[in-house]
Amino acid sequence: MGGDHAPERIVEGAVEAATMARDGLEVVLVGDQGVLVERFSSLIHGLPIEIAHAPEIVAMDEAPTAAVRRKRDSSVAVAMNLQRSREVQAVVTAGNTGAAMASALVTLGRLPGVSRPAIATVLPTSDGATLLLDVGANTEVQPANLLEFGIMGSLYAEHVFQIEAPTIGLLSNGEESGKGTDTIIAAHRLLSGSSINFIGNVQGSDILTGAANVVVCDGFTGNVILKFTEGIMSLLTAGLKRGLSRSPLSRLGALLMSPVFHQLRTELDYEEYGGAPLLGIDGVVIICHGGSTAKAIRNAVRVAGRMVQEGLNEHIKERMNSIHARDIQS
Amino acid sequence: MGGDHAPERIVEGAVEAATMARDGLEVVLVGDQGVLVERFSSLIHGLPIEIAHAPEIVAMDEAPTAAVRRKRDSSVAVAMNLQRSREVQAVVTAGNTGAAMASALVTLGRLPGVSRPAIATVLPTSDGATLLLDVGANTEVQPANLLEFGIMGSLYAEHVFQIEAPTIGLLSNGEESGKGTDTIIAAHRLLSGSSINFIGNVQGSDILTGAANVVVCDGFTGNVILKFTEGIMSLLTAGLKRGLSRSPLSRLGALLMSPVFHQLRTELDYEEYGGAPLLGIDGVVIICHGGSTAKAIRNAVRVAGRMVQEGLNEHIKERMNSIHARDIQS
Repeated sequence: MGGDHAPERIVEGAVEAATMARDGLEVVLVGDQGVLVERFSSLIHGLPIEIAHAPEIVAMDEAPTAAVRRKRDSSVAVAMNLQRSREVQAVVTAGNTGAAMASALVTLGRLPGVSRPAIATVLPTSDGATLLLDVGANTEVQPANLLEFGIMGSLYAEHVFQIEAPTIGLLSNGEESGKGTDTIIAAHRLLSGSSINFIGNVQGSDILTGAANVVVCDGFTGNVILKFTEGIMSLLTAGLKRGLSRSPLSRLGALLMSPVFHQLRTELDYEEYGGAPLLGIDGVVIICHGGSTAKAIRNAVRVAGRMVQEGLNEHIKERMNSIHARDIQS
Repeated sequence: MGGDHAPERIVEGAVEAATMARDGLEVVLVGDQGVLVERFSSLIHGLPIEIAHAPEIVAMDEAPTAAVRRKRDSSVAVAMNLQRSREVQAVVTAGNTGAAMASALVTLGRLPGVSRPAIATVLPTSDGATLLLDVGANTEVQPANLLEFGIMGSLYAEHVFQIEAPTIGLLSNGEESGKGTDTIIAAHRLLSGSSINFIGNVQGSDILTGAANVVVCDGFTGNVILKFTEGIMSLLTAGLKRGLSRSPLSRLGALLMSPVFHQLRTELDYEEYGGAPLLGIDGVVIICHGGSTAKAIRNAVRVAGRMVQEGLNEHIKERMNSIHARDIQS
C-alpha cells in the first residue's frame, strides 16, 4: 500500500512479474484485503498471486521509527513478519524508505558479521551498470563499515549481476590512495588488504563510466548523488520540452528521433534495474522509489527472486565469517 | 601556460575578453615570452594585452606543493606575484588546480576573518544558476567553515550575480534540520542564527532545480558532485551518438533539432559561467577547468573583472569583521 502510485502500479508490477515468471515465483500482495479483492481479483485470477491482509498504511511522510512502533498492522510490518515466519522469502516495497529499513532491522535483524546494513542502488553506465552503496542507511561510517559495504557489494555483483571477480572502487576526491577524508584513507588500507578485487579510489566522474562494477561510499554522499541524478533527469527533460515548444521543425526532428530518445531513456532509467536492495539484513528486502512504475516493481520482484535463488545472504554470511577476523579486526 | 589547450585557447579567450571589454579591462598574459610573442603578437596587436615573462610551467599532474616550492618562475607563481605587487588585480588559470590554490594561499594569503578559503562553482538550473561551494579546497570541514562558506557564497551571489538577498541552502541527506552528519546538524544551527538568508537543508535533487541560489557543502561532497556532473554529460553525449548512428531518419531528426540541442548545451554548459572562483583569499583568483575552451577563459576573465569592480573582497572582509564575534564564536 506504500508509494505514490499504490496500490495500482504495485499490483500491476506484481502481475507482470508473476506472468513472466518461469521459475516458480509466487507473489503475495500485502495490503487492505477488501480493496485488493474488490479492485484486482479479476486481474490476478489464475496467477500465482495471493493476498495477505494488512489494514494499516505508513504514510510517505510519517516519522519512520514511530510508525514502525505504532502501526503493527501496516503493510510493511505485516510483509516483514511474513518473511520472518518464512511464509515469504523476500519483501519488495515502494513505501516510506525509513519505515521499510527500520521494520526490516527490527523484524529480520542483521546477518551475523555485518555491523551496518547498507542500501545499494544501480546506476546506468554506457555499457552496463554500477552498484553504488551506501545510498542512505548510514549517514556517518567507520572505515570497517566501508569494507563491509565493499564485500557485500562484491558478492551482490558476483551473484546477482553474474560478474566474475567484480571490481570495487572507493569513492574519493582523487585517485591517489592518500586522497580523501581520514575515514576514506583508512578504508582504502582495509580494502587493499581484503580478498575482494579492490581497484582503489574512484572519483565522481568514474561512477557513470563504469570504471568499477561496485562503488563504495558513506550514506550521506551516496544519498546526495542518488538525488542529484534525479535532478539531472528532470532538468534535461524540462530543457528539451522548452526547446521543442519553439518551432515545428524541432518537433518534427524530435518525432524522427523518438526511437533514439526512447533507447537513451531506457539506458538511463534506474527503474530498469529494479529498486535498491537493503544488504546485510537477515532477509531479502528491496526498496523501490516512491514513484515507481509497474515496470520498476516488476523488475524489483525479479531481482528479489534472483537474490533468493542465488542464496546471496548465505554467501555474505560465509564470507563475513571466514574473513571477519582477518579483515575487520586487523 | 597551464591547461590542456594552453597557450592557444587561453590566449584566444584573453583576446575575446579584451576585445569585448568596455570597462577598461586590461589583460596580462603570463607565460614564456618567446613563445607568446612569436605565436600571438599579431593576434594581440592593438588590444589592451601585455605579456609578462614566466619561463617555467607546472604540469597538470605535478604534485602541487612541491611544484609551488620549487618552480618560483612558473606562470602561476609569476601571476600570483603580479597580483601581490598590485600590478594585476586578478588571476585566471586553467592549470594545475592544487598548484593554483597553494600558490594563491602562500602568495596572497587569506582575508582577515576567513579560516578556510573555498572553491565555488556555478551549476546550471532550468532558470538560472546555483553557486556550489566548497568543491575541493577542504576535504574535511568544521561547522564554522560551512558558515563562512555560506557568508562568502551569499556575498558572491549578491555582488557578482546581482541577486538581492540570495537564498542559501545547506546540502544534506534530508530537509529536516536534524538530518545529516553531526557537522551538518551543527552547521545548520550556526547558519540559522546568522544574518544571511538561510533556507535550511537542501538535498541533491535541489541543486539543479535552483531551490537555493547558493548551496554549501564540504569539499569532498562538492568535488564528487562536480565530477559526477562531468560524467553525466559524457554519458548523455555517448548515448545520443550511439543512437544516431543507427538510422538515417534519426540523423535527419537530429539535424532538425540541432538548435534545441545547442540551446540545451549552452544552458547546461558550466563554461558559460566562467570558472570557479577561489573565495576567501586576499585577492581574486579564478580556477578554470583544464580543458577550458576560449569561451570559458573569456567568461572567467569577465567574471574576475566583475569581482574586482564590485569589490567583493571588501564586502567579505567587512561582513566577517562585523559578524565574526557573533556568528563564529557563539
